[in-house]
Amino acid sequence: MTRRSRPPAVPEPGKFAYSGLDRVIHERARLGIMTSLVARPDGLAFTDLKELCDLTDGNLNRHLDVLHEAGLVEIRKEHGRGRARTVCRVTATGRAQFLDYLAELERVVAEALAAAQASPKKVPSRMLSSQA
Amino acid sequence: MTRRSRPPAVPEPGKFAYSGLDRVIHERARLGIMTSLVARPDGLAFTDLKELCDLTDGNLNRHLDVLHEAGLVEIRKEHGRGRARTVCRVTATGRAQFLDYLAELERVVAEALAAAQASPKKVPSRMLSSQA
Repeated sequence: MTRRSRPPAVPEPGKFAYSGLDRVIHERARLGIMTSLVARPDGLAFTDLKELCDLTDGNLNRHLDVLHEAGLVEIRKEHGRGRARTVCRVTATGRAQFLDYLAELERVVAEALAAAQASPKKVPSRMLSSQA
Repeated sequence: MTRRSRPPAVPEPGKFAYSGLDRVIHERARLGIMTSLVARPDGLAFTDLKELCDLTDGNLNRHLDVLHEAGLVEIRKEHGRGRARTVCRVTATGRAQFLDYLAELERVVAEALAAAQASPKKVPSRMLSSQA
């Protein structure tokens, strides 16, 4: 026997660490940006992306910087007729990482639902009485 | 006609804003904490929770503070034999909000997968050539 004969209280250390959930994509606004861009592989104008995700110019710029630094999106000025417009596109790497992220997220949801269903509405009586 | 006759470029403004995704729960570490606690409605010792979620004392304390302020968890010192231990439990409100969050997250995953499947591997040729 080892120094401590007591069995470990937690049978699966790190079970809910969710280290597979990419933090760059998981942030709520960036999740919306990535979904928008994956749906439009030809790219979306900055102004349209802003509207789809309901973000301010400043917030969208900040999140695009994070995604760009991670190699998930590319941002280009396009010059057509009239003034230039900024167009955002998902990269091949971004698309692949986003699909990996979604697969992990599906797993997390299934696991959490299973956790909740395994312990339905078992609320401590003290909590119930404090709500009465 | 209104001032601008051009139809809106984005048919569904705010479609990917995901305002229904509760920011307090969505953060990755807190998602793990909530799943752990929902699975164990009788509560989990701080040390066990730390191990399940692979967090440091400082990080777990910080995230528990956020969850506690939102009314999603309760934290108590319990005095049994030996020294006191800190026990964390999900509240009835926390459980209900977590289930709402999961339902919303399922919707987000389904929508994102649909977005990706509607535009399979359509990568701009410029990006392909730069990878060659």
